Amino acid sequence: ATAFRASEHQHIRYNPLQDEWVLVSAHRMKRPWQGQVEPSLLKTVPRHDPHNPLCPGATRANGEVNPHYDGTFLFDNDFPALQPDAPNPGPSDHPLFQAEAARGVCKVMCFHPWSDVTLPLMSVPEIRAVVDAWASVIEELGAQYPWVQIFENKGAMMGCSNPHPHCQVWASSFLPDVAQREERSQQAYQSQHGEPLLMEYGRQELLRKERLVLTSEHWLVLVPFWAVWPFQTLLLPRRHVRRLPELTSAERDDLASIMKKLLTKYDNLFETSFPYSMGWHGAPTGSEAGANWDHWQLHAHYYPPLLRSATVRKFMVGYEMLAQAQRDLTPEQETKSLEGEITPRLDSDDL
Amino acid sequence: ATAFRASEHQHIRYNPLQDEWVLVSAHRMKRPWQGQVEPSLLKTVPRHDPHNPLCPGATRANGEVNPHYDGTFLFDNDFPALQPDAPNPGPSDHPLFQAEAARGVCKVMCFHPWSDVTLPLMSVPEIRAVVDAWASVIEELGAQYPWVQIFENKGAMMGCSNPHPHCQVWASSFLPDVAQREERSQQAYQSQHGEPLLMEYGRQELLRKERLVLTSEHWLVLVPFWAVWPFQTLLLPRRHVRRLPELTSAERDDLASIMKKLLTKYDNLFETSFPYSMGWHGAPTGSEAGANWDHWQLHAHYYPPLLRSATVRKFMVGYEMLAQAQRDLTPEQETKSLEGEITPRLDSDDL
Ligand SMILES: O=P(O)(O)O[C@H]1O[C@H](CO)[C@@H](O)[C@H](O)[C@H]1O
Ligand SMILES: O=P(O)(O)O[C@H]1O[C@H](CO)[C@@H](O)[C@H](O)[C@H]1O
Repeated sequence: ATAFRASEHQHIRYNPLQDEWVLVSAHRMKRPWQGQVEPSLLKTVPRHDPHNPLCPGATRANGEVNPHYDGTFLFDNDFPALQPDAPNPGPSDHPLFQAEAARGVCKVMCFHPWSDVTLPLMSVPEIRAVVDAWASVIEELGAQYPWVQIFENKGAMMGCSNPHPHCQVWASSFLPDVAQREERSQQAYQSQHGEPLLMEYGRQELLRKERLVLTSEHWLVLVPFWAVWPFQTLLLPRRHVRRLPELTSAERDDLASIMKKLLTKYDNLFETSFPYSMGWHGAPTGSEAGANWDHWQLHAHYYPPLLRSATVRKFMVGYEMLAQAQRDLTPEQETKSLEGEITPRLDSDDL
Repeated sequence: ATAFRASEHQHIRYNPLQDEWVLVSAHRMKRPWQGQVEPSLLKTVPRHDPHNPLCPGATRANGEVNPHYDGTFLFDNDFPALQPDAPNPGPSDHPLFQAEAARGVCKVMCFHPWSDVTLPLMSVPEIRAVVDAWASVIEELGAQYPWVQIFENKGAMMGCSNPHPHCQVWASSFLPDVAQREERSQQAYQSQHGEPLLMEYGRQELLRKERLVLTSEHWLVLVPFWAVWPFQTLLLPRRHVRRLPELTSAERDDLASIMKKLLTKYDNLFETSFPYSMGWHGAPTGSEAGANWDHWQLHAHYYPPLLRSATVRKFMVGYEMLAQAQRDLTPEQETKSLEGEITPRLDSDDL
């Protein structure tokens, strides 16, 4: 019988955090690509555009004028998917027709007054200001809502409709789907093994050294064993931290610095401003914030779509939508690419 | 208190088939779109291109020459994500590092000898030939594999790398994630309510008449109450049918005809060759095909990405990837658009 090699033999891997499987078929990178190529981003963004509603001093859709901010700037999304006062749809009349109330707020956070920078181009103290603003908004909205989702869509490919560096914050009266899955998994792991899933996971990856992208005094960046996107990573504190506001000043400085390193690696990989969606997950907040959430470990997921070059992405379509996630290089090959040891366009079997 | 109106007030809905929630925020269609616009497909496709590996008589990547087929044509994918003989990764040494064997085959099915047609442009007898070919491939690969996923990625936007009309068939030694979810949900519904989930669901939608797009003697096309994609639909037989090969000749003819109608509606909506991913789900096959799968009802899902026009799509990004699916028009508004009663670019509240 042939010996199993992950880089040659397709197999499935389990994501214990979100209770999902992924099909890993590394040999598939060898197929030629004749499909859609994304426009390359030659457009230069002006540093200040008075008509861009995210710029300092600009007028927004609702007529409000932005202050001449010089750090981060948080404001209400003018087209929010969640509003604070929606009425309740009332009881469902049938188990197959269940609707429930959803209340919340949507905010936008500008990272910097300039439109022509991105996080990796900002200084570490400027990124540290973003980390502090994240912690504050979790504190502010978490006082009322059980879930506060911070996320950044970077790049037009990820549906970002404004080039000004910013993220979004959607707070909701309900625990969203992914949060529920992570809650169930972390809760179950803690009661079975007596420690947080992601604490043990981080420790294991430090021992195994096969999927570590960056380590610092307080943080780890690794490629999860079960990664789905071609260059997906997971950002974890070394210490057990449940939510962003709990981070110490030293941990925040270190986070700013490791984020700058990670995002610079991403930009260098295909020599482009690397698109991604990223977001933070931490213990639920709101009225039950005081309950025991020790099974939670704070973390950020990075989901970048590019596969082969600045213009060729991975499509999560037919099989992935109808059956199961599928990836074309192993998480270990991905790690080597991010370490800069191999070019991401894999042509050889022996990785 | 304000009365609840789905078209005005955001709420969440439950998908009982896949055990997921969606956030419905219809008021969000009013926001202006300044983000990425997709290239419009002006390229005309030649009817026959001797260099296109999907055309009759063309030479494929592995050197094989296609026959001069004049109906459907099934062949092995030259770059398969699943191969029949991959070795087993062996037992896992830790609960957070679980990998399992995956075996299977990937096939490609051409629908027609011409590259410049799509299913809605084909005749009903030609589509009927596709239905028969689907039934045969389920029978053939289902003899060995527990899951045979038929899916079509249509359009470059959905990662389709070849304009020739075709679908793919991936058979696997494992039940993929989505199949597992549908298995669990349908099994649980049957044991609680004594009938198949989707039989009761179809019956309810026929009674409620709010989300029916097309009905025929043997089939229903409806917008699921829990639809996620802007113009998502569900195609269901009226009779209890577990798998494609069980369809009678009359049901197959009727399926060909209702598919042509649905896909023509889609093409007309934004006056474009409508992109989508679609796929069939039926009871598991393989060695356990003889077990009791009565809780399963055959169905097809259509997931089209367009939202506002032929060039503006819905992005399932940050919030959707990190938290929960979100849609910008209600399933009931979608139904009206597909019925042709309102233009999809919604500008008014009173729908
Ligand atoms: O049709 P292709 O080129 O084989 O591939 C397409 O569909 C596959 C199955 O959904 C995806 O894994 C690929 O990312 C996509 O490009
Ligand atoms: O940044 P925007 O323009 O508000 O919107 C973007 O992110 C949202 C949250 O992930 C998605 O629902 C939209 O489809 C996407 O275009």
